[in-house]
Amino acid sequence: MRFKFSLMAIGLEVALIVLFALYVQYETEQKNVQQLNTTKPSDMDRFLELYPLFQDVHVMIFIGFGFLMTFLKKYGFSSVGINLFIAALGLQWGTIVQGILHSHGKEIHIGIKNMINADFSTATVLISFGAVLGKTSPIQMLIMTIIEIAVFSGNEYLVGEIFQASDIGASMTIHAFGAYFGLAVALVLYRSGLRRHENQESEYHSELFAMIGTLFLWMFWPSFNSAIADAGDKQYRAIVNTYFSLAACVLTAFAVSSFVGERGKLEMTHIQNATLAGGVAVGTCADMEIHPYSSMIIGGLAGIISVLGFKYLDPVFATNLRIQDTCGVHNLHGLPGVVGGLAGIVAVAMGASDKSTIAMQAAALGSSIGTAVVGGLMTGLILKLPIWGQPPDQYCFDDSVYWEVPRSIEHDHHLHENGSHNQLEPEV
Amino acid sequence: MRFKFSLMAIGLEVALIVLFALYVQYETEQKNVQQLNTTKPSDMDRFLELYPLFQDVHVMIFIGFGFLMTFLKKYGFSSVGINLFIAALGLQWGTIVQGILHSHGKEIHIGIKNMINADFSTATVLISFGAVLGKTSPIQMLIMTIIEIAVFSGNEYLVGEIFQASDIGASMTIHAFGAYFGLAVALVLYRSGLRRHENQESEYHSELFAMIGTLFLWMFWPSFNSAIADAGDKQYRAIVNTYFSLAACVLTAFAVSSFVGERGKLEMTHIQNATLAGGVAVGTCADMEIHPYSSMIIGGLAGIISVLGFKYLDPVFATNLRIQDTCGVHNLHGLPGVVGGLAGIVAVAMGASDKSTIAMQAAALGSSIGTAVVGGLMTGLILKLPIWGQPPDQYCFDDSVYWEVPRSIEHDHHLHENGSHNQLEPEV
Amino acid sequence: MRFKFSLMAIGLEVALIVLFALYVQYETEQKNVQQLNTTKPSDMDRFLELYPLFQDVHVMIFIGFGFLMTFLKKYGFSSVGINLFIAALGLQWGTIVQGILHSHGKEIHIGIKNMINADFSTATVLISFGAVLGKTSPIQMLIMTIIEIAVFSGNEYLVGEIFQASDIGASMTIHAFGAYFGLAVALVLYRSGLRRHENQESEYHSELFAMIGTLFLWMFWPSFNSAIADAGDKQYRAIVNTYFSLAACVLTAFAVSSFVGERGKLEMTHIQNATLAGGVAVGTCADMEIHPYSSMIIGGLAGIISVLGFKYLDPVFATNLRIQDTCGVHNLHGLPGVVGGLAGIVAVAMGASDKSTIAMQAAALGSSIGTAVVGGLMTGLILKLPIWGQPPDQYCFDDSVYWEVPRSIEHDHHLHENGSHNQLEPEV
Repeated sequence: MRFKFSLMAIGLEVALIVLFALYVQYETEQKNVQQLNTTKPSDMDRFLELYPLFQDVHVMIFIGFGFLMTFLKKYGFSSVGINLFIAALGLQWGTIVQGILHSHGKEIHIGIKNMINADFSTATVLISFGAVLGKTSPIQMLIMTIIEIAVFSGNEYLVGEIFQASDIGASMTIHAFGAYFGLAVALVLYRSGLRRHENQESEYHSELFAMIGTLFLWMFWPSFNSAIADAGDKQYRAIVNTYFSLAACVLTAFAVSSFVGERGKLEMTHIQNATLAGGVAVGTCADMEIHPYSSMIIGGLAGIISVLGFKYLDPVFATNLRIQDTCGVHNLHGLPGVVGGLAGIVAVAMGASDKSTIAMQAAALGSSIGTAVVGGLMTGLILKLPIWGQPPDQYCFDDSVYWEVPRSIEHDHHLHENGSHNQLEPEV
Repeated sequence: MRFKFSLMAIGLEVALIVLFALYVQYETEQKNVQQLNTTKPSDMDRFLELYPLFQDVHVMIFIGFGFLMTFLKKYGFSSVGINLFIAALGLQWGTIVQGILHSHGKEIHIGIKNMINADFSTATVLISFGAVLGKTSPIQMLIMTIIEIAVFSGNEYLVGEIFQASDIGASMTIHAFGAYFGLAVALVLYRSGLRRHENQESEYHSELFAMIGTLFLWMFWPSFNSAIADAGDKQYRAIVNTYFSLAACVLTAFAVSSFVGERGKLEMTHIQNATLAGGVAVGTCADMEIHPYSSMIIGGLAGIISVLGFKYLDPVFATNLRIQDTCGVHNLHGLPGVVGGLAGIVAVAMGASDKSTIAMQAAALGSSIGTAVVGGLMTGLILKLPIWGQPPDQYCFDDSVYWEVPRSIEHDHHLHENGSHNQLEPEV
Repeated sequence: MRFKFSLMAIGLEVALIVLFALYVQYETEQKNVQQLNTTKPSDMDRFLELYPLFQDVHVMIFIGFGFLMTFLKKYGFSSVGINLFIAALGLQWGTIVQGILHSHGKEIHIGIKNMINADFSTATVLISFGAVLGKTSPIQMLIMTIIEIAVFSGNEYLVGEIFQASDIGASMTIHAFGAYFGLAVALVLYRSGLRRHENQESEYHSELFAMIGTLFLWMFWPSFNSAIADAGDKQYRAIVNTYFSLAACVLTAFAVSSFVGERGKLEMTHIQNATLAGGVAVGTCADMEIHPYSSMIIGGLAGIISVLGFKYLDPVFATNLRIQDTCGVHNLHGLPGVVGGLAGIVAVAMGASDKSTIAMQAAALGSSIGTAVVGGLMTGLILKLPIWGQPPDQYCFDDSVYWEVPRSIEHDHHLHENGSHNQLEPEV
């Protein structure tokens, strides 16, 4: 049935509107009457104060993740387009699921932190999307978004409310979780025919488009790690630590990329991804009093590990483990996320936090990875149900399966040699 | 005379400098002496508080509108370049015209809202620019900018000051106005030779450039709709309503695009434009207490209507009505702007505003469309005067008429087959 | 030794971490205890208030400078990649050098202004990078970054602390300094074989990528010129003056580009660069009470001078003076920076500042240019040492020397005809 995607998307939107009508309310200033004569800022002041940080996160989600994935020569429409679809769906669904969990089933009053957290929940799915990029249909992504955000919200509630662990930049709950969830899905969806697929290459300009994504992620990562931190010292430290961690990470990523490259050459994939690992890895302890130089050590190590992952782990994953990780999310989010979780444990052990304990932090890391793997495997099985359809191997990493593409892609870029993609295409 | 454009641009800048010397002043803190001992924020505090929202709007104007129009394979320089020219001219002229109207001829003190409104006034022209994109010369755009901003400011004054209608996100005064103004100009400038012009196609990468514009417009639309809202609850609601309206709009736009597409395929044009219709349509009532779920309904409907407009109305406009709407601004700004005006009437009827009445809102919608059509027709006639020159049909949608283009455009992209565009080109 | 770059980068990062451990501390709210009962904003409030301006500057550094340089058809990876490397290294090194100078050797407490100034110091190097773009190796850029930031910080300390001159937007200390430093380096590195190099051309889409850089620089320049201005009137004026100066500059740049162009055609190089000259030129007196119309005069003149520089000075520099200025930084930063310095002298002479004198301003301008030229010449000599290696002339402006490039660059774009770049390449 060719209208399946359309009907599911419309149906979901109607359901979301009903859920919003039932559960969601504005925040109102009336709640703050008692503050009128104080100098303490009201919720509304805080709303505008955090709004620029929210917008930075927003840019990371839609431009950052979207364009980071445009590196494939024939899959840019889907990267940036389905990214938009997932994020728009996810932020509505995330508002509901997280809101209900945190309000314990009562009304949800939309404040700036709800909006930031809604964007965060979509980040998890977009990370997983990177692992399966080019190998799934829009309808499968729609289903994965719904399931993954529910599982993510459950784990995030567990980590934050039950374990009371620190994870302000979400190294564990978003990055490690999103990566291992996506890898588990990719394992279930493994198809040997996709090994070294001719479409799985980049073009000169597609690499430049991807750098737009990289840079917006890189620049705004301090906002990501600090957006929901406590006002004052903690928020300040989250910004400063992330700023310096990322800077250190760039130097080590460049150094190692050239070190392991053929005749010292740099590789764009490393620069696009590993330069961001410092933002991931410093996430858990970003708001702690760890000293700027410690964040630089964390960032520097993350950059090294990430490049080495791309160089030496990716081939092992693709062949031996039968996990085809299109964007290498394991190296950008998985490994650095684990580094972040471990750094958090070390920081807590050294007394950088007065709120959390080693046990809580370890439980949070274990729970994030465990939930992700189990949730991802189950989601993969659901996505594999024949009812959703899957593109045949020869049409993977190819926009023309789901999009009208301009004629010029064939004519001008010589990307196709026999035009065969106009025949026998599966329906969306 | 080949120096006509240069001399007019320089002359205009000199005139603007004289007008600024006569009418424009800094805002000074001295005016706020009486507030020194209060906790009420001074104008200067409010300046910095709104500055991030201003910058978001700024990005929408220059990157958003500029790149949204780069989808044509051979007209990217003009799209993003003339967009910059129009906006830079328009913001100076808009500062003067709007400032004098609102200060009733007295001195204009430049505050952050003047800067936001100056940017807004350019948005109107840029929307109209989309309707005539590729078919007019820079000199014609210069003239249209001067005329349209004057007419726009008059209508905006009428709507806001005389009718006292609500239109915080300017669904009527900017979006519907800009669209119908541009369509009226396009009607007057109609040329049958441009039907199905070979240059009016996109390229694979030009579509990705356009997505940069789409996403920055999409992300920052909450700032657009809230930037000049009253501080506190209203500004907060304008942000929240727009955020959710846009998210809902994405789902319906994707759904309908696939629904009406051949074999369920998505179309980039729809995704680039219709996903933004929710921002337009929620504009008029964005700051009202309409409840988030209502904004999702408005956004969802706007996404549906916009895609249907692209699919079924555009061909009718181009052939039967003799209106060639290059960017489809009718579907992105025109129809959703009318939806926004009607939604405003319904919201006021249901008591969501204590300031406006149904009659005021209806008068505002009628005035915006009426003024736009009359102003656009007159402007079209002025632009058609032989003195300005017009590119002959075979050179339309082609940067090489007004720009030095790199040789590679012919050589590498095979966009030209006989190089004929190097001969017989009209002067700028 | 092919690992030279890697080892130097890693070694530098380790050294920076040690320096941070020794000299850098968090800023703490405890210092502001006495303010708790006042309405004066604490440092932390000011941190978040200025954070959006910092992020604007951040975008200018990484996206703005990075993409502005992607106009060359085969050098986009290096432009945006090495830009990232330089900036990430420079901001760490700049934090240390500027911090130690301003704290007179004591501990550095990282506040938002330190972060803004760290970004500023990288801008200087990135401007110089534009002059030598395509002709140097990553290792040479690493060395130039270290030297130039030290010299820059010395001059900036001289201008600000010793001369007590005004230069809020850094027309002299960043723009003129960076340009003349880079030109001096380019003079020393002159190679006649690079004259009219076939790789020194643009492509249609590379020009559009460059416009991304231009527009983000253009839009956020008001933040650049105001980010470290005194709170209140001065910061406000720096924003307003820059906003209008840039707008005026666009009109004159377009006018003159068409005026001097063949048959009235516009040139992308002018639009990408000269439209920004207004931001540079108004920098020195941006926070002074010069009236908006004066900033428009400054911006308008800068736009004219900049285009004329590109058209008539560049060829003279390249041939007669033996200075190959790849990006034309002399026309975007050098000349407009001098205009800015002179405008500052005039403004002070007319009483627009109560802090500075004509002599101080003149000393600042002379010092900035003098230090830059001497520093640049010495740096050029160091960069010319055979130990660092230099790409042979035939491989200049070519990413494939230092980067793995996708096969498609040859196949799809026909950029190479004989594939010779795969042989005999020098190591990084």
